[in-house]
Amino acid sequence: MGGDHGPSVVSPGVLQALGLLPRSVSLLLHGDEKAITQAFGKHPNLEGRVEIRPAERVIAMDEKPAQAMRRGKGTSMWNAVESVKSGEAAAAVSAGNTGALMAISKLILRMGADLDRPPLVVGVPTPKGVTTFLDVGANVDCDAHRLVEFAIMGEAFHRASYGIARPTVGLLNVGSEDMKGHQEVREAHAILREGRFDLDYRGFVEGDDLTGGAVDVIVTDGFTGNVALKAMEGAARFMRSELRVALTRDWRANLGAILARPGLNAFRDRISPPPAAPLLGLNGLVVKCHGGATARDIAQSVQVAATLAQSDFADEIERNMRKLPAVLADSGPPSVDGAAE
Amino acid sequence: MGGDHGPSVVSPGVLQALGLLPRSVSLLLHGDEKAITQAFGKHPNLEGRVEIRPAERVIAMDEKPAQAMRRGKGTSMWNAVESVKSGEAAAAVSAGNTGALMAISKLILRMGADLDRPPLVVGVPTPKGVTTFLDVGANVDCDAHRLVEFAIMGEAFHRASYGIARPTVGLLNVGSEDMKGHQEVREAHAILREGRFDLDYRGFVEGDDLTGGAVDVIVTDGFTGNVALKAMEGAARFMRSELRVALTRDWRANLGAILARPGLNAFRDRISPPPAAPLLGLNGLVVKCHGGATARDIAQSVQVAATLAQSDFADEIERNMRKLPAVLADSGPPSVDGAAE
Repeated sequence: MGGDHGPSVVSPGVLQALGLLPRSVSLLLHGDEKAITQAFGKHPNLEGRVEIRPAERVIAMDEKPAQAMRRGKGTSMWNAVESVKSGEAAAAVSAGNTGALMAISKLILRMGADLDRPPLVVGVPTPKGVTTFLDVGANVDCDAHRLVEFAIMGEAFHRASYGIARPTVGLLNVGSEDMKGHQEVREAHAILREGRFDLDYRGFVEGDDLTGGAVDVIVTDGFTGNVALKAMEGAARFMRSELRVALTRDWRANLGAILARPGLNAFRDRISPPPAAPLLGLNGLVVKCHGGATARDIAQSVQVAATLAQSDFADEIERNMRKLPAVLADSGPPSVDGAAE
Repeated sequence: MGGDHGPSVVSPGVLQALGLLPRSVSLLLHGDEKAITQAFGKHPNLEGRVEIRPAERVIAMDEKPAQAMRRGKGTSMWNAVESVKSGEAAAAVSAGNTGALMAISKLILRMGADLDRPPLVVGVPTPKGVTTFLDVGANVDCDAHRLVEFAIMGEAFHRASYGIARPTVGLLNVGSEDMKGHQEVREAHAILREGRFDLDYRGFVEGDDLTGGAVDVIVTDGFTGNVALKAMEGAARFMRSELRVALTRDWRANLGAILARPGLNAFRDRISPPPAAPLLGLNGLVVKCHGGATARDIAQSVQVAATLAQSDFADEIERNMRKLPAVLADSGPPSVDGAAE
């Protein structure tokens, strides 16, 4: 029922997903039975792989998280997350209200990490593929402990998502030397560098490594991550609009733009953000699809959920997380000054 | 003597600067007299506006700041900054070693603000013009006090540089509501919102406002600012290289790129970072030109220095700074939780 268009987009998305997924994967659809069925069209080829679970109420896109938690029981979103808790579903996917989905997921599944909120994860395009970047906004204040948790979760997520056996991990900073940055990053760096977790930590990286492909996973606090992500989005938007001006300034440029159009469209697609991201750190899989989702985005989100559910993702995170208390107990904070050059 | 190419670029830059500046402005050139004179060519038209001050030693581009401070006396960089201290020069310009220039400037001129280092300032291009952005790396840890100082200095700098009577100022955050962000930004927001300084504070802005032109001046700590700036630079570099691929993928795209070339060059120039930035917060004007400077960049840097020296820049900063202790004494820290959406 979620997203800006509800079943009219979700149902066609489900049909696309069925085509992409192995036949062993089936879907539970929570929501208004009539609306969902209608949106499938006349003769949908569901092959018995879709089951509708009627839910009368929905969480509105503008509902406050606190309100959603109080009044959420029995809504389509609540029931979808509940089906993960009960073990009936391996993962939940929603294009609905992000704050509400986080709140309800936390309430039902509980956090498995020392975090207030699941970190927000995005994939940033690079010349080599995609860099997994977290947290881009959920946890504004992060001590070293949390940054280490992000490294563990991000690494497992990257492996499960892109099939890379041993993703490399970097910590975002203002320089690459050990004494750079504020205390939290230097402490997290010291912990990760010890090598007691099962992950390939490569040290500090800088802002331009996000799109440079230096490492597979880049970790930062939710404040810096949110600003960096939006700064990149803004830069991309600015460059696109400047490019449009440059390509329409006279008849030559105009003709050039027409000839180059297929290439420019490929370029635009590559810069677009990915449609889906998991809420990490929960005891269970929940994937958030962006609100303005198209049917194709819904299909991709379902595919992401299925991929993660079939991987060792959750176990790998748990294994590393179990080592964390002992590692933290052994390490003390360094204390040098660390401005950027 | 500074920059990657020394006098061979600086001297031609000085000649360009003379053409751009009013006849009342004259220049002192510190360094190797022979090298400087040779680089001016045979019959330079100096019109008596250039005086060479011989200095035998130079600070190397890779010298450590601490070393530069110890052994710097008598170098061309040291003498240039010293001439500001003595009042003989209204401003110093250098394309040399950034860390050394900061250290020597601090030592000779002293900081007029509660900062370890002058904040680094850049101009970010927007559809409307340029946004002044600081600190992009000098002060990694910033409390509310420092953020307020950046607002005061950035606003005066923007007015002096771009002739805008009353620049608008925003504070970088992960959302626009009062309770968003960590304690330092919420405290600075509360102080600036009171309106007791002579500046037009517009509240919180987000990462994409850097290139969006929402306000004239955007303030943040040196960690976030450094990451955001490099993230934007990386995104721009990535987009340029993707664009190159898109525009050379087949003969049509290739032809399109050739036809669009003048427009694309204009686009590239607009995205390039500005060559010069002042070191703010010092008791005296020092302008840093980037190390890879061309003669044109040197000329522009000298122009920036002259513009700032002729403005009320320093007085305006001092007037607002004097109000700071009383304002800080009156305000207490707020304490709500403030994650991004």
